[in-house]
Amino acid sequence: MTVRWGRDGPGFLMDLDRAAPETLGRQLQEQLRAAVRSGRLRPGERLPSSRRLAQQLGISRGLVVGAYEQLGAEGYLAAEKGAGTRVAASVTAARRRPLPRPGGARPGGGAPDPVEFAYGIPDLASFPMGDWTWALAEAARTVPAAHLGDDADAGSPWLREVVTSYHRRLRAGCAAPADAVVVGGFRHGLTVVVATLARRGITHLALEDPGPREHDRIALRAGLGVVPVPVDDHGLDVARLRASPARAVLVTPAHQCPTGALLSPERRRELVAWAEEVDGLILEDDYDAEFRYDRRPVGSLQGLAPDRVVALGSVSKTLAPAIKIGWVLAPPEYVPAVLEEKRLTSRGVPVLDQLALARLVESGRFDRHLRRMRTLYAARRDALAEALGGALPGLPLTGLAAGCHALLRLPPGTREAAVVAAARRRSVVVRGLGDYLVPAGRPGDRPPGPLGPALVLGFGNVNESRIRRGVRALAEALAETRAGDPAGAAGPGPAGGGTGAPPVRQVY
Amino acid sequence: MTVRWGRDGPGFLMDLDRAAPETLGRQLQEQLRAAVRSGRLRPGERLPSSRRLAQQLGISRGLVVGAYEQLGAEGYLAAEKGAGTRVAASVTAARRRPLPRPGGARPGGGAPDPVEFAYGIPDLASFPMGDWTWALAEAARTVPAAHLGDDADAGSPWLREVVTSYHRRLRAGCAAPADAVVVGGFRHGLTVVVATLARRGITHLALEDPGPREHDRIALRAGLGVVPVPVDDHGLDVARLRASPARAVLVTPAHQCPTGALLSPERRRELVAWAEEVDGLILEDDYDAEFRYDRRPVGSLQGLAPDRVVALGSVSKTLAPAIKIGWVLAPPEYVPAVLEEKRLTSRGVPVLDQLALARLVESGRFDRHLRRMRTLYAARRDALAEALGGALPGLPLTGLAAGCHALLRLPPGTREAAVVAAARRRSVVVRGLGDYLVPAGRPGDRPPGPLGPALVLGFGNVNESRIRRGVRALAEALAETRAGDPAGAAGPGPAGGGTGAPPVRQVY
Repeated sequence: MTVRWGRDGPGFLMDLDRAAPETLGRQLQEQLRAAVRSGRLRPGERLPSSRRLAQQLGISRGLVVGAYEQLGAEGYLAAEKGAGTRVAASVTAARRRPLPRPGGARPGGGAPDPVEFAYGIPDLASFPMGDWTWALAEAARTVPAAHLGDDADAGSPWLREVVTSYHRRLRAGCAAPADAVVVGGFRHGLTVVVATLARRGITHLALEDPGPREHDRIALRAGLGVVPVPVDDHGLDVARLRASPARAVLVTPAHQCPTGALLSPERRRELVAWAEEVDGLILEDDYDAEFRYDRRPVGSLQGLAPDRVVALGSVSKTLAPAIKIGWVLAPPEYVPAVLEEKRLTSRGVPVLDQLALARLVESGRFDRHLRRMRTLYAARRDALAEALGGALPGLPLTGLAAGCHALLRLPPGTREAAVVAAARRRSVVVRGLGDYLVPAGRPGDRPPGPLGPALVLGFGNVNESRIRRGVRALAEALAETRAGDPAGAAGPGPAGGGTGAPPVRQVY
Repeated sequence: MTVRWGRDGPGFLMDLDRAAPETLGRQLQEQLRAAVRSGRLRPGERLPSSRRLAQQLGISRGLVVGAYEQLGAEGYLAAEKGAGTRVAASVTAARRRPLPRPGGARPGGGAPDPVEFAYGIPDLASFPMGDWTWALAEAARTVPAAHLGDDADAGSPWLREVVTSYHRRLRAGCAAPADAVVVGGFRHGLTVVVATLARRGITHLALEDPGPREHDRIALRAGLGVVPVPVDDHGLDVARLRASPARAVLVTPAHQCPTGALLSPERRRELVAWAEEVDGLILEDDYDAEFRYDRRPVGSLQGLAPDRVVALGSVSKTLAPAIKIGWVLAPPEYVPAVLEEKRLTSRGVPVLDQLALARLVESGRFDRHLRRMRTLYAARRDALAEALGGALPGLPLTGLAAGCHALLRLPPGTREAAVVAAARRRSVVVRGLGDYLVPAGRPGDRPPGPLGPALVLGFGNVNESRIRRGVRALAEALAETRAGDPAGAAGPGPAGGGTGAPPVRQVY
């Protein structure tokens, strides 16, 4: 990839020594030659115009023209009619490391067009680009110049009004705008919050097990110990939490990641009671609450216990991960510490993006988008359930009451890693439940948890025909795995769900 | 501030229990009333239309209309012709904490239109909003939907090509695109880099003293000890660094913050030799290099010693802090660790903003903006020097060879804090040099460093007439301070510049 400099291209830094014995023209030639040889200027890259370079260096234009001609004659440069002077394409530049492929790993074998059952990715083709560019243009048109400075404070007051109002209305929250801190997405928010906990004397963070990937590493990075707490069909096992030394817990109550369980009303009450008893804090990752397919709505924990809950949110799953805006809604006493951690880790979030999001939500366009997506995801959900019912009847599929992923339980004894590998050979990318066990580690290298082997099927970014194709491939992969492993009992058995205190993993 | 919901506004979460003894209409009324009382719905805020709410709840529209009428009769709601139903403005909402004023502290006394000699803020009114929105629109028009997912990797490959190419050309750098990691501004980059150092076994980070504010806190947050190293007219005192236990140092070589010194060629060579000797690392904050007023250009340290330098950059001072994009150019062996720290602290930088910046730079519009700003800042620099020469003759003004700030040395014995306070009373905001001493602390509460008392005058965002007004006020403030303190020797004297090892401050 060669940068296609427009107009003259930027200048070029050179140090001409007027006191040196070599002439300026000679120095110019030598430095340009060295720049091409060392790769400072790349093959095909356009040089500044002779006029611009002469102006920048404070020398006559003729010297630059002369140097360009000389290096052209030597084969370093090539002048093109109307396209300026470029480095000759034939030059071999030094020290050129190839860029890694963008977007991370792809399935091997060069297979075309894989089906990726990726967790947490919404339908990217449905991103409302027209609405978003409208909102950005509105923001650009109306922002006062004085607001283009640092945003080290809590973020746009307007966005904080809009986010908290929306959260009150649709999530039955009760945070005031002053409780809201805008952050650069969920992970930035979590980084800031776990550092705040550590500063406030909290030593251990409990995490759902299985749970969102890498959250244990983020907590450990802040100096917290990590306590995995099991999850069942009703969400986090609060009795196990109670037996642990943790005074803070991170939960996904609206749609547990990755099992899809909804935290039951009893567990919600128990969890809040626990927080009161231990003077603790609940971190609520309220994702997927926007996409429920059953009628009964479930409010946020934040609304239930505003003094015990820090709610974290983002638009990664409602708009697109690329937008990178999130928020932290914290009890008032925690807000100053959260702000300080935000200030030390970044000077804030792009201002125009914040204003665009506020505009998008306030205008109703965000809501219109969510309605559209609800319909789309409901159809994909039905397609997944139908395809699996046909291809793999009898395997339980759970967690479908909300959101964009479900859990396909595999027959006991099935080795997840083998199924995942067999699916990859068929151009289907999927993760086993084992990838979500705490602590985070390499995929496929550990025994299944108490829930047994399962696959996490994210369908947000997979259209219906691809869902059907992917499910056929999964059925083949499972058949192949079981055929090659007739005992069906390779690998260690389930870890067993004891009732004592969960293990504590210290800082590594 | 009331959110002005467009169209219908978003829905409203309610839990109607079809098995309960109360009728659905009664439940609806009760839940709406509770929402107004608790502040979930704010005075003046628009409710969903009856059609939308009925649809959302799966009930007849008549029930919603009836509930709205009942609550209207009770004074909770007010229906406006053509504007839908709103919460009555007279309702007093519970728990409403006021928003703090955006933009941080302002001078007291309600004085209008202060002159702020703020460090590090470019001319915000000159932000090229037209070019930026053009670049954003181009990015939106051309980005493939598949690129709207997570950006947990090193960032846009295109932006990394453009940034490294620009750095090679104009800063004589030699980083390859694969060495570049896009981050959310300088602070995010520094957070990620210091965490990387800590992981790689580096225990102490040396910092310029005086130096950029709060960098000690960012290092301490990562678990590093901090070693302040004095700065003189040639930049960092490398001999003092050599006597310290630090194996990493953060420097501002192109225009020292806040003294404005240029790191001399001898010191550059000594610094690189030091890094080789101790197997250490130099973190280069290459800011203000774009705005040099003398002819002799100075390349980046990264180009001089690519295996020993991590270069950090951002567009905060070339475009505006609000943009929040920066980069880290690291020796190849450090790149994987930097990427991992980036991934754990955020899932990356807004994708459209990255593409817009790449487009802006590649198109030449960025460069055109810089040329304009160079002229603007040169005029402001001259205005500052001239005004100070007239109002405060004899006081040395240093650091003016580049950038947008200078250092005004005050007569020995002058108390910075008193001058700063007297200036504030005249609506002029300025910081004393003491605010930049390591460790960071509250302003004005410590003795001056070996450079003596001084003021840091940022003039990037202050136009020429305001510069003149500000300088007049500073002269008055200084006269007032000296008049009230005739001995001219209040406060402890300079700390003295010993030659031994600098003190080490451990993690707090």
